[in-house]
Amino acid sequence: MKTNAGRFFEDYRLGETIAHAVPRTVSGGERALYHTLYPARHALYSSDEFARACGLPAAPVDDLVAFHLVFGKTVPDISLNAVANLGYAEGRWLKPVFPGDTLRSESTVIGLKENSNGKSGVVYVRTRGLNQRDEAVLEYVRWVMVRKRDEAAPAPEAVVPPFAKSVAASDLAIPAGLDFTGYDFTLAGEPHRWDDYAVGEQIDHVDGVTIEESEHMLATRLWQNTAKVHFDATNRPDGKRLIYGGHVISMARALSFNGLANAQMIVALNAGAHANPCFAGDTVRAWSEVLDKAETSAPGVGALRLRLVAVKHGTEPFRLKGEDGKYLPGVLLDLDYWAVVPR
Amino acid sequence: MKTNAGRFFEDYRLGETIAHAVPRTVSGGERALYHTLYPARHALYSSDEFARACGLPAAPVDDLVAFHLVFGKTVPDISLNAVANLGYAEGRWLKPVFPGDTLRSESTVIGLKENSNGKSGVVYVRTRGLNQRDEAVLEYVRWVMVRKRDEAAPAPEAVVPPFAKSVAASDLAIPAGLDFTGYDFTLAGEPHRWDDYAVGEQIDHVDGVTIEESEHMLATRLWQNTAKVHFDATNRPDGKRLIYGGHVISMARALSFNGLANAQMIVALNAGAHANPCFAGDTVRAWSEVLDKAETSAPGVGALRLRLVAVKHGTEPFRLKGEDGKYLPGVLLDLDYWAVVPR
Amino acid sequence: MKTNAGRFFEDYRLGETIAHAVPRTVSGGERALYHTLYPARHALYSSDEFARACGLPAAPVDDLVAFHLVFGKTVPDISLNAVANLGYAEGRWLKPVFPGDTLRSESTVIGLKENSNGKSGVVYVRTRGLNQRDEAVLEYVRWVMVRKRDEAAPAPEAVVPPFAKSVAASDLAIPAGLDFTGYDFTLAGEPHRWDDYAVGEQIDHVDGVTIEESEHMLATRLWQNTAKVHFDATNRPDGKRLIYGGHVISMARALSFNGLANAQMIVALNAGAHANPCFAGDTVRAWSEVLDKAETSAPGVGALRLRLVAVKHGTEPFRLKGEDGKYLPGVLLDLDYWAVVPR
Repeated sequence: MKTNAGRFFEDYRLGETIAHAVPRTVSGGERALYHTLYPARHALYSSDEFARACGLPAAPVDDLVAFHLVFGKTVPDISLNAVANLGYAEGRWLKPVFPGDTLRSESTVIGLKENSNGKSGVVYVRTRGLNQRDEAVLEYVRWVMVRKRDEAAPAPEAVVPPFAKSVAASDLAIPAGLDFTGYDFTLAGEPHRWDDYAVGEQIDHVDGVTIEESEHMLATRLWQNTAKVHFDATNRPDGKRLIYGGHVISMARALSFNGLANAQMIVALNAGAHANPCFAGDTVRAWSEVLDKAETSAPGVGALRLRLVAVKHGTEPFRLKGEDGKYLPGVLLDLDYWAVVPR
Repeated sequence: MKTNAGRFFEDYRLGETIAHAVPRTVSGGERALYHTLYPARHALYSSDEFARACGLPAAPVDDLVAFHLVFGKTVPDISLNAVANLGYAEGRWLKPVFPGDTLRSESTVIGLKENSNGKSGVVYVRTRGLNQRDEAVLEYVRWVMVRKRDEAAPAPEAVVPPFAKSVAASDLAIPAGLDFTGYDFTLAGEPHRWDDYAVGEQIDHVDGVTIEESEHMLATRLWQNTAKVHFDATNRPDGKRLIYGGHVISMARALSFNGLANAQMIVALNAGAHANPCFAGDTVRAWSEVLDKAETSAPGVGALRLRLVAVKHGTEPFRLKGEDGKYLPGVLLDLDYWAVVPR
Repeated sequence: MKTNAGRFFEDYRLGETIAHAVPRTVSGGERALYHTLYPARHALYSSDEFARACGLPAAPVDDLVAFHLVFGKTVPDISLNAVANLGYAEGRWLKPVFPGDTLRSESTVIGLKENSNGKSGVVYVRTRGLNQRDEAVLEYVRWVMVRKRDEAAPAPEAVVPPFAKSVAASDLAIPAGLDFTGYDFTLAGEPHRWDDYAVGEQIDHVDGVTIEESEHMLATRLWQNTAKVHFDATNRPDGKRLIYGGHVISMARALSFNGLANAQMIVALNAGAHANPCFAGDTVRAWSEVLDKAETSAPGVGALRLRLVAVKHGTEPFRLKGEDGKYLPGVLLDLDYWAVVPR
């Protein structure tokens, strides 16, 4: 059998590190495509000149480009037989990625817990994205529920790794050289600075984008994510293609420009839930809530901890869960991240 | 309120200059995407070698890429609350844009006239696109009808700026170094030179392209044009997404290659009307008429003033308006521009 | 008449060479778009670092990018009035194409044979793709059935050129410097080397992709292929757009990664048939068969001759033709090529 059937739950060993295949060099092409697939307008990723004025050598590719590329490589090894993508934690962007950089990924298994039904189990991995100089550009923890190949296979000792509920402000990796003291708010698109945001503040980002089959497939392929549920309409009885959760993340983040234009760089991913599946024809909207604020040691640079929620059209903003404690059916994404903002 | 509600008619002041947000660096990515979104084949934009043989340092990005990028930046400040895009005038491309250049836009309010109904008014702006050296690469006048926020707001003194009916041939900015004396007609795709075109001549460009939702959204996002009517199927009662008029301009211009392959560079936009809305499913065709001819001082370079008309399939070429003087329902675009052509 | 009506059968002369129009410079944009349009994962085209470790100066653009670009240029001169694309032979990739290269095409008419019905004839051309240094990067023979403009035009003397049934292993052009002795199978994605493949072995590539209208049009335009059947829904009575056969080739080749991840570079095209038309909504799957094996003189580099078959969902793998000797209705593509593989 020459094809990859993917790993099943009993194939993972605690502590092993899996080197994922297919390194990828990024160029201006990926940058342009990101602007084509999402209504992305954060100036630091759009303009080399703006990025230089902020102390960087050029505009990096969007932080989510780095995330999707690193994540996509893990799919054949981690989630080909996954039943569900359960969560993210302790995500940190460690270095910006620039056109010309080559990324690869590796994941260490940090936890394993078989489900009581004996049919599947939860795999916890810490994934790192590395550039061509073997520098880590990104790391995050992710856990997924994976089927067993053989239900009779013995359960491993259950290990559930402890996670920080969110990345501590003191652990945020601010890109070397980043300096917002000369930040141009006019070119960035909004006047709101760190001081203008209050913990608890909620922002409805107003705009919506209706999702098309070809667009989510173009995006998902761009990250070399091969999960067949996204591409093959014959895969589900209802003929629907499930949209890659990362497509919704990028769409919501891009929509959040309207109200958070100065939340320039994502520096940490504290938590994330793909609350409900998204399908073509859905119109995606987004709202945010300020969860926390922190200072940083970089000149003029503050940090905001933000909840970013994507909903389908028809679901009111600022509501997440029903009385049963479950996400409302129209909620697609509940993401908790840190971004840097000019002070 | 952190989000941008857009400006209303009473928010504009005669003579003010608005600096538009989100500068953009272009790369080979934008060039490749333009060839992906439109059947664009003009050799000067397709081949660095061909461009060098014409005296340029490399192939610029298509003139319409520059136009769309400059235009897109103006949308949040000029046309977010626009009822209608009424016209263009005095458009001139002043410098080619090359991969690596960073563009930004600014607009000066040059006219204001409230409508007699007191609910809206016409705003006239002169928009300039500037590169990273603060050189103007493009300028044009555009006027739009914008709603009033408060119908009781007093009307400003009516000022309607005078426009030239078309850019004078002597005002065309021919790119520095452009030289068509060694022009390769075989590589360019057609043998027709400036002398072969006669004023009054009409050309049916034959080919048609059926428009898809995802394609016009990809294109419109690429220019960071945020107008929600293009993206949000819930925005209109009929569930249709209005196609950005610039998508039709680029489609028609690309189709015009067949018969005008040597009309290489657009150097002026004299006038333009988006005669009727375009929707996904429409098959776009195009025809042209030679309106004028002019010599230029650049070696081997002549200029043609052309009418470019986009129609929906089913509308015969060479007919624009009905007996009532209104555009026929199948006419999408009526554009009047100058292009440079080898002599 | 300024527009191109295309050539008809009686317009071709044996021995003439046609220089095709519109040279094209490729960049990282084309590379990124290829990864967006197809689930392409071969590491040599994805990573500059991986390509360097294999002795190349950087990652070339996919061999099929070169093929499609060279092919696309021939359409206005060769196949605008074609009734059918009949076959390929003697295709050889002679030099990799890198971002920054500019490609043009030319075709020599090597055979002509009028059909007995007097309405059409078969035109045989040998097409070469040339870079900016006038080096051939690709050559192949193709034959198409072309309509006559005037059925009364006299038939030319029938000349059917002899073809090799497949490119001899000794004629394969292995890229200068290619060295697989340090090949990283982990990064490439599969452990299978040349020795692991046996003549007669068949591989079902498992995955499927459902085809969308916008995606095949984006791809076909990217190669500046202007054939109207691909773009104009009004062109056929059934309102369907015929999908460019090359879109199916690229889709199938990308799907073949799963089982043939190390069949890195395509070096020869022995034969190919677009067995049945493909339309939007079809879900494309692929299977391969090892037809032959050969050693090469390059260090660590072997060659596999492979049959690549694309089928529509619902057609079982490993079956090609029915009892009548005709391709089964669900078979889309039957391609015979040589690829290089680490030993």
